[in-house]
Amino acid sequence: MVINIKNFLLSRNKKSKIGDFQDLDHIDGDAISVISANLYKEDRDDVVLFYFRDGANYASVYTQSKIVSENIKWNLNIKNNSIKALMVNTRNANAFTGKQGQKAIIQIADELSKQLTIKINQDEEKKNPFQPKQILFGSTGTIGEKFPTQKIIESIPELISKIKYTQNKYLWIKAALGIMTTDLVPKLAMEECKIGNSEVKIYGIAKGSGMIYPNMGTTLGYIFTDADLSSSILKKLLKKNIETTFNAISCDGDTSTNDMVSIFATKKAKHLKINNYKDVKLEDFDKSLHSVLLNLAKRIAADGEGASKFVCISVLNTKTFDDAKKIAFSIANSPLVKTAIAGEDPNWGRLIMAIGKANIEISLSKLAINFGDIKIIEKGQLVSDYDEIYVAEYMKGEKIDLTVDLNLGKKNFTAYTMDLTKKYIEINADYRS
Amino acid sequence: MVINIKNFLLSRNKKSKIGDFQDLDHIDGDAISVISANLYKEDRDDVVLFYFRDGANYASVYTQSKIVSENIKWNLNIKNNSIKALMVNTRNANAFTGKQGQKAIIQIADELSKQLTIKINQDEEKKNPFQPKQILFGSTGTIGEKFPTQKIIESIPELISKIKYTQNKYLWIKAALGIMTTDLVPKLAMEECKIGNSEVKIYGIAKGSGMIYPNMGTTLGYIFTDADLSSSILKKLLKKNIETTFNAISCDGDTSTNDMVSIFATKKAKHLKINNYKDVKLEDFDKSLHSVLLNLAKRIAADGEGASKFVCISVLNTKTFDDAKKIAFSIANSPLVKTAIAGEDPNWGRLIMAIGKANIEISLSKLAINFGDIKIIEKGQLVSDYDEIYVAEYMKGEKIDLTVDLNLGKKNFTAYTMDLTKKYIEINADYRS
Repeated sequence: MVINIKNFLLSRNKKSKIGDFQDLDHIDGDAISVISANLYKEDRDDVVLFYFRDGANYASVYTQSKIVSENIKWNLNIKNNSIKALMVNTRNANAFTGKQGQKAIIQIADELSKQLTIKINQDEEKKNPFQPKQILFGSTGTIGEKFPTQKIIESIPELISKIKYTQNKYLWIKAALGIMTTDLVPKLAMEECKIGNSEVKIYGIAKGSGMIYPNMGTTLGYIFTDADLSSSILKKLLKKNIETTFNAISCDGDTSTNDMVSIFATKKAKHLKINNYKDVKLEDFDKSLHSVLLNLAKRIAADGEGASKFVCISVLNTKTFDDAKKIAFSIANSPLVKTAIAGEDPNWGRLIMAIGKANIEISLSKLAINFGDIKIIEKGQLVSDYDEIYVAEYMKGEKIDLTVDLNLGKKNFTAYTMDLTKKYIEINADYRS
Repeated sequence: MVINIKNFLLSRNKKSKIGDFQDLDHIDGDAISVISANLYKEDRDDVVLFYFRDGANYASVYTQSKIVSENIKWNLNIKNNSIKALMVNTRNANAFTGKQGQKAIIQIADELSKQLTIKINQDEEKKNPFQPKQILFGSTGTIGEKFPTQKIIESIPELISKIKYTQNKYLWIKAALGIMTTDLVPKLAMEECKIGNSEVKIYGIAKGSGMIYPNMGTTLGYIFTDADLSSSILKKLLKKNIETTFNAISCDGDTSTNDMVSIFATKKAKHLKINNYKDVKLEDFDKSLHSVLLNLAKRIAADGEGASKFVCISVLNTKTFDDAKKIAFSIANSPLVKTAIAGEDPNWGRLIMAIGKANIEISLSKLAINFGDIKIIEKGQLVSDYDEIYVAEYMKGEKIDLTVDLNLGKKNFTAYTMDLTKKYIEINADYRS
């Protein structure tokens, strides 16, 4: 996958179903290096390093799978509140690799911390050397293959030599491309907001694909901010905002051993001290973080494997949040709904099927369903002037909004997904060959 | 879909991944009529009547969906323990058809019972006329389309005139063909067994397709026996045996508004009176019923939409039955596992993913996985002599057995499914056009 970044930038408007992303610029305290360790047969970048010279506070959420990859186990074991680096590799998930995969991380972390200490941190770091346990790892790729320890270790000198302390849009895109697997487009998002009167940046990159809960095994999302927030505040903000963003894009219901979303705060922005995540001064930051996470999550759904359409499923006015979520995912995970959308078929019968199987009590006489702005079902009945021609026309769009209103309560949930196409089967049936 | 039954019989061996079915013959007390009410554009049978002149005891299990079709609502309202007829139509599921669909059934049941009383039951029935509420209805087809009441009512005279009191293999196949939707092959199964010293028959037909939990909305299974068993015994036997047969073929996780499996006992066999479903004299019948149900269920899975392979997923030695079932279905419903199988790719990493996401506590160091007879994982490790060549060869077969052994307890569950192919998308994306 050789991608010319400038050509890509010229064409990207055409590639995204949900519009262009804004350009990311520079975040103080962050540094990035992107290289190829030749993990793929093709010539492409496959190792990305984020280096926080002065440390970063951070928080992560990980996969809920009962079988997790070696890098996730490593990350879960880190007790430091401050981190020095995040290394992400593609091609190999380091999952079900047993002792070999476990050793790989120890060796790579040792080597990386040693070389970083020697080559970069002449002053302060010699007194307080970079520790292996200050490195987080993200991995994505096939499960159960021997982890390419040697290739990665051999690439460390180049990785360090290419660290860039000043970022620009090209570098961020290069990093977003470097963590991709079967994604077709890199995912980036940014917001600028205020904490008190001080400007703060929130940047993010992500990868998904593999019908979102992924193929090669992973949804990865990395958020970077120059805000000066503690790890415990970051953790609360991340948990709060992940539910309606990254956790709203299930799709085929498959869950990776490697899923990981992290936020890193370089503490370089000067703003009033924040002691509590509910501090009103964080309101803008909180909203902006949600926006960056949602923006990335939508990009992941829109670029799900083989996707020809981006689908938003809003379930409204349920008794509980969980009811809304169950119905939304029942629809979002239904192959019959998703193939109908691929076929541009306004088959609302399948929507009814998916609502029914969610096992939530509904009152049929209160049910309303919209496709976009077109009313289909009202008070549990097909609208009297229903004309499939208009809905069929609507289904030809690249963005499909389905709204299900239960009229039973006040809770809402929106799930994001894509259609299920032949291309998905092609990608996944032939993935390893 | 014009199918020449004799040609079909000659070629059927080639069509089924799980072998031929045995020929069904005659069951005393049952009568069958199969006709076309022109519900399809193509020339094919679409209404099937089973008529039990002397009544039949019966039991049914229905879909668990919170939205059920009008025919299922009708059936749930029948309080009689004895039934006179089962009418099955295809093309239209009579689901989400509201008052129109509800009225349709009342009208059809009225008309059918009236005409059957007049034309057939000269003697006894005139005293005790056939009641609308003695008719069960099965429907399968699209959801939300106006139910074709008039066409069906107009077809009743022909339906009655073609009732055959003596069945043979051709008639059973014609009936099995008449209830099909997107199925490629009819599903039939039979067993002969004993209650005490008396011979008893158990025959069954089914339809599935729509990646099993179906497209057009339905899995239908109808079992017929000449045994003399009460409805309450039938109910217990059906519930007991459905769990590991029809309820073991989930597949894409989509659930119909119309699912229905029923058993009818014509009471014509002479055998010792059975008062309890746990009676030892029922052991053979119980096993044979399980066998017929499992046989039909497997045929449904093997003929799932677009299926190129039939897949059995056995999860062994779990702490609870529910654990085994959850893991088996997590694998059976995983698009990533199913596409890998379609691609003949021994991608055991995806199996690991699916086991992990089932959210059941496992002990990795005890985990064992086999593909057919080939050991892949033992004690949580890839076997040392693992050679993908042999497994890749195994994946080329039409029947794939995956075994996951947790070595944690003594419970087992086997799920039946198929691979996920481009053909599935084709069928479902273009279904209504």
